[in-house]
Amino acid sequence: MDRRSFLTKTALGGTAAAASTLAAPAYAQGKRTLTMVTSWGRGLAGVFDAAQKCADNINAITDGSLTVEIKAAGELVGAFEVFDAVTSGQADMYHAADYYFVNQHPGFAFFTGVPFGMTATELNNWYYHGNGQAMHDKLGEIFGLKSFLGGNTGTQAGGWFLNEIKGPEDFNGLAFRMPGLGGKALGHMGASVQNIPGAEVYTSLANGSIQGTEWIGPWADEKAGFQEITKFYYTAGFHEPAAGLSLATNLEVFESLTPAQQSAIEVSAGQANVWNLSQFLMNNGAALERLRAGGVNVLEFPDSVWDAMGAASQKVYDEFMGDELFKEIYDDYVTSMKASSGWLTNSVGAYRAQRDRVLG
Amino acid sequence: MDRRSFLTKTALGGTAAAASTLAAPAYAQGKRTLTMVTSWGRGLAGVFDAAQKCADNINAITDGSLTVEIKAAGELVGAFEVFDAVTSGQADMYHAADYYFVNQHPGFAFFTGVPFGMTATELNNWYYHGNGQAMHDKLGEIFGLKSFLGGNTGTQAGGWFLNEIKGPEDFNGLAFRMPGLGGKALGHMGASVQNIPGAEVYTSLANGSIQGTEWIGPWADEKAGFQEITKFYYTAGFHEPAAGLSLATNLEVFESLTPAQQSAIEVSAGQANVWNLSQFLMNNGAALERLRAGGVNVLEFPDSVWDAMGAASQKVYDEFMGDELFKEIYDDYVTSMKASSGWLTNSVGAYRAQRDRVLG
Repeated sequence: MDRRSFLTKTALGGTAAAASTLAAPAYAQGKRTLTMVTSWGRGLAGVFDAAQKCADNINAITDGSLTVEIKAAGELVGAFEVFDAVTSGQADMYHAADYYFVNQHPGFAFFTGVPFGMTATELNNWYYHGNGQAMHDKLGEIFGLKSFLGGNTGTQAGGWFLNEIKGPEDFNGLAFRMPGLGGKALGHMGASVQNIPGAEVYTSLANGSIQGTEWIGPWADEKAGFQEITKFYYTAGFHEPAAGLSLATNLEVFESLTPAQQSAIEVSAGQANVWNLSQFLMNNGAALERLRAGGVNVLEFPDSVWDAMGAASQKVYDEFMGDELFKEIYDDYVTSMKASSGWLTNSVGAYRAQRDRVLG
Repeated sequence: MDRRSFLTKTALGGTAAAASTLAAPAYAQGKRTLTMVTSWGRGLAGVFDAAQKCADNINAITDGSLTVEIKAAGELVGAFEVFDAVTSGQADMYHAADYYFVNQHPGFAFFTGVPFGMTATELNNWYYHGNGQAMHDKLGEIFGLKSFLGGNTGTQAGGWFLNEIKGPEDFNGLAFRMPGLGGKALGHMGASVQNIPGAEVYTSLANGSIQGTEWIGPWADEKAGFQEITKFYYTAGFHEPAAGLSLATNLEVFESLTPAQQSAIEVSAGQANVWNLSQFLMNNGAALERLRAGGVNVLEFPDSVWDAMGAASQKVYDEFMGDELFKEIYDDYVTSMKASSGWLTNSVGAYRAQRDRVLG
């Protein structure tokens, strides 16, 4: 379904009204069915699994009180239409990467990943024990959403390029797929940045309409098959040091649930968060070795490129600082990142360096 | 309650029988109360919170179907008696660090932390997407337990010493508190190692019956007050690169629960796992700065000490390799750690190094 047909249906109220009518009898028995739309193609490695895990958890622990039915991208609405579908009441909840919705509000980027921002561990620290959840709630109240982190891909790879990247000038005029604030930063480096749904990225790279793409990391990238098109693969990227995935419920729907059902959604999303991050990390190591064995050049950007990415990222932040809520979230986010990263360097960072040194 | 009086009560069957009788009427209505014993003093920073979070989650999401009642250390049984209490049926579940029970089986150490072993992220990778949960189940079946990870302290600090540590010889004859396999390794370095319950550690250090202790990390250590006794504090430690906390249910009790109740325990523990790790990490940074400001010398062990710790740790592993199940868990654990740590170095490790370099 394209965006126009979705808007037409919503305006007519057809789909939304039908859903309400169908839901009523089940609700009377204390049992409710919630429709979850996702930005993921059915079965898409890792990201669809996270949505499925959220749903499975809710279904299992509520013992029939809630039944979540997942609609993959395109089954009810398109990948990027899930936000409108849930805020309009056409669907009850979405599972997606909130940075897809930076045009609704740029603050959504912080709940996925932002350039030179938090790692997954740091994001969790902010979310559960800083003001992250509260900031997510503040954004959600504007749009009528109650959101929780419900997955994370870990630090995303720098991506696939048709040609090797030797300096920041190689981004000039490069047609590249990258969503969120990272994509805007690459724009400042001269790239022609495109935000293409996952299902269409392979074809776009194969037919040359883009000359490079970031996707997720070795495991999901290998499944997507980018190594069939090019052999230049950059591991660490600046753009998504983590990529949190959100489970967002229509706020009116959420508030109509019982406290137990609300808790079930929150706890289910939290467990899916750690489960999904581990899924990506566990699978990425083995996939990277397979890619390497298959002739992929596993590379890192030179310092000059990182420096240019840093300068371009700061320009992006500066552009949004006029928005009061964006600035509030940014300031809190940066403060939390600094507070949490120092101990990580002194503890797990120092430990891993010694472990590598001692074990050889 | 000391160990002897606990064993006497169990032998007479008094407590266990009374609990069964009381539980019966509630069970008939489909509602059950589960008694959780813990190794933690009531309110102990972080670790008791993790137990409380598990219980709160279960109570909230099961909507009255399950009610978990927490007994802190000493309220029903002592800190280290929770294992026997649950395997004997005196209590329904425990929340503890499984390495307290290495004398029951040395394999339990892997589910908390082992010398030169996994970080919290690596432990989760193994647990949720390697064979970690399956190995935990295998151990649990021997003793009649069904266990889940239900918390993590992150990488633990090297600890507090009455005097500065300048070389491995400084451990010779040192009376030191350290549980688990790490403690056994320090024994190989000549230390007189003691396993003292948390509630008694401060007094032991203050009255000189030990000359040093590891506890958890800056946040919990500061609350414990060790900085009042000594100013020598080592951050990264070799002994607990992570410290997973377990929520373990008596296996017969677990199997008597409905599938929804079983899922509720599993999902609740998983959410508590990520929530609790973040709690420790978020609080540790600020606490370390306060300790530093208060005159504590924040130090790292010299390489010669790390080398000696590495050699001593290998001796500990070698001692247990005759146990078939220990060796099976060890081999699987090391394989998983290697598979998962490579990508972490290439992605989040490389990223953090560049972030620190670019942001200055």
